[in-house]
Amino acid sequence: MALAVSPLAPKNGFPDIPPVKGVRFATAAAGVKYVDRADVMLALFDPGTVIAGTFTQSATRAAPVLDCEHKIKSQTKDGAAFLVNSGNANAFTGRAGEKSVEAICDAVALATGVSASRVFTSSTGVIGERLPDDRICAVIGTLADTATATGIKDAAQAIMTTDTYAKGAFRLHNGTTIAGIAKGSGMIAPDMATMLVYIVTDAKLPQARLQALVSDATRRTFNRITVDSDTSTSDTLLVAATGASDVEVSEDAGFAAALEDVMRDLAHQVVRDGEGATKFVEVRVNSAASEADAQKAAMAIANSPLVKTAIAGEDPNWGRIVMAVGKSGATANRDRLGIRFGDIVVAEIGWVAETYREDDGAAYMKREDIVITVDLGVGKASGFVWTCDLTHGYVSINADYRS
Amino acid sequence: MALAVSPLAPKNGFPDIPPVKGVRFATAAAGVKYVDRADVMLALFDPGTVIAGTFTQSATRAAPVLDCEHKIKSQTKDGAAFLVNSGNANAFTGRAGEKSVEAICDAVALATGVSASRVFTSSTGVIGERLPDDRICAVIGTLADTATATGIKDAAQAIMTTDTYAKGAFRLHNGTTIAGIAKGSGMIAPDMATMLVYIVTDAKLPQARLQALVSDATRRTFNRITVDSDTSTSDTLLVAATGASDVEVSEDAGFAAALEDVMRDLAHQVVRDGEGATKFVEVRVNSAASEADAQKAAMAIANSPLVKTAIAGEDPNWGRIVMAVGKSGATANRDRLGIRFGDIVVAEIGWVAETYREDDGAAYMKREDIVITVDLGVGKASGFVWTCDLTHGYVSINADYRS
Repeated sequence: MALAVSPLAPKNGFPDIPPVKGVRFATAAAGVKYVDRADVMLALFDPGTVIAGTFTQSATRAAPVLDCEHKIKSQTKDGAAFLVNSGNANAFTGRAGEKSVEAICDAVALATGVSASRVFTSSTGVIGERLPDDRICAVIGTLADTATATGIKDAAQAIMTTDTYAKGAFRLHNGTTIAGIAKGSGMIAPDMATMLVYIVTDAKLPQARLQALVSDATRRTFNRITVDSDTSTSDTLLVAATGASDVEVSEDAGFAAALEDVMRDLAHQVVRDGEGATKFVEVRVNSAASEADAQKAAMAIANSPLVKTAIAGEDPNWGRIVMAVGKSGATANRDRLGIRFGDIVVAEIGWVAETYREDDGAAYMKREDIVITVDLGVGKASGFVWTCDLTHGYVSINADYRS
Repeated sequence: MALAVSPLAPKNGFPDIPPVKGVRFATAAAGVKYVDRADVMLALFDPGTVIAGTFTQSATRAAPVLDCEHKIKSQTKDGAAFLVNSGNANAFTGRAGEKSVEAICDAVALATGVSASRVFTSSTGVIGERLPDDRICAVIGTLADTATATGIKDAAQAIMTTDTYAKGAFRLHNGTTIAGIAKGSGMIAPDMATMLVYIVTDAKLPQARLQALVSDATRRTFNRITVDSDTSTSDTLLVAATGASDVEVSEDAGFAAALEDVMRDLAHQVVRDGEGATKFVEVRVNSAASEADAQKAAMAIANSPLVKTAIAGEDPNWGRIVMAVGKSGATANRDRLGIRFGDIVVAEIGWVAETYREDDGAAYMKREDIVITVDLGVGKASGFVWTCDLTHGYVSINADYRS
């Protein structure tokens, strides 16, 4: 099925991303599942590259994820490669899944000269079906031969499943370039959704420093988004720094901020392509007893089907926010609880605000981007989450089409 | 709005519940919010009655819940009363909410001679609006005067909000009668949903024993159901034992089982009236490391929007079950995981079963009642949850109508 582009998609389309030194991309149509479209992406990195990553915490994570986690741990500074296919997740495929990963890594090594231990793969698509690795291996020679510095947009398209738009972002900082692509839009029938993110930069820094920056920024970006509370078996973020700019950034706070910017930008784009989404929602929680409590309350609000359907209906139903705070397990002072929609004070000190008018709340809810702020009234910690609404579109995408 | 009766409603309608010795019911139309229907229910208990209860764990629980929790702790064996209104939840109403509870309890005490400390109230309906307690107090005299032993069905109707049918159940055991009513159907626009359950019996047993039986059975009944993972500020279960049958049941395992039967029956009826529900689903989890792990995995499956929409679409999408197990946090052996739909083996030892045919799974999914069994492959503990599917009906009820 072809889905209409999300109404929340970036108005300017895919950004005009400049080449990143030491990085080349290629795509091909292997026919893993889709026909007449590119479904395999290769990213090739020059010697000197270090790789960092973060992965799904799922107990049923897929074979490529387990392989990446293993390889991230012991690294050289040789060349490296990412090989990603869409159409089949290679998840819940037992021993056969591991063999497919091996076969693909060996084929990439053979075609590119990169060591198999430096090939990182991801797969996204249907679960439980054997990955047709032979079809992927058959195009790897072509991929190696056609890789170019300007292929990043094609790469972003090749990894889409039922995303409604390709997702890319970049920042320039002090002579370095940071560019990223992502796929994901919650969970997509008939496939298991997966969020995949690949970021490349020509900055120079040790692997341990890159990993620390990525792990830290992940906490504030990709770990702060939720579409439907469901977690994929395959979520993967890989970051490659080629060092080809010769600009050392280990102690450069501006580089860390620029990297986090790219990650936040891509995280927002994933939420904005949430299945059936019509609203982009930021949930902020303040005056919590701890950061963990703030996060717990924010996630409970963002994942509540009742809150999400109210937002879809443009209904300023703040009672459902009180409910979500109550069930979250976070410590809250019922008699000091406060709620705001944007700058509108809805509730304070445990009851509806005297100044609040339902019409103001209803008018605010008509916006495309909504900010909900909740004060728990017990401490000084804060947290936030980005999410989208829950609409008929979500149910249609996930229930109306048979796999 | 008038909703069509749930397709999962009991085929025989409301059961023909016999009177319970020492218990009388009355209802009245107080105009709390609804017009032209009874919206207040009084249950009156003779001296000798003991009361047990379990309540929502929400941190934002409503004033009546806090009052009931307090009163449950110190009890006499005097007469007692339950007073319940629909249309307004008296939740998130600050000090005013507590005063409303006090006013109602005092009015019931005055009209019935029962001590105010023995009056237990519940409220269900809109949140954050001051309860018009004067309208409720105005009908309490009439309620006291008209209470009859046969009014339980009217009582079940008076506490409905947008439930699509009244819920009742009873069991006879060894000269005692156990009868119960419930309301709840997930979360209902424009109101915050609430599950309220009242069970009455003429059996004779000490309060501590009754509370122990109720708490224990709650773990296996009402705490095993979920419609949309959202928890009300007002969920309340109250059980009154009048002792009027003069049958001592403290050591009678059959009574405990009959009580649990009534609770399970009502719990199922609440799920069967889940908003928009078209399927009743039992999720069983076996071979878990602990009972807590089994429950965690079962709840993750039952609350997954992806699993619930797949069931709505009659799609045997077992990959989503693997995903839900993976995200649950329960320990699972990916390579020993097994899944069954009814008796159909879908997956075993970590991959799709050789005997599994997609057509068989699809045919099974067309049933109204569905059993999903998952083996985690790590231990000997089990758990289960009852839930329903997630349909366009749910979104319509919660998003399409403004509050």
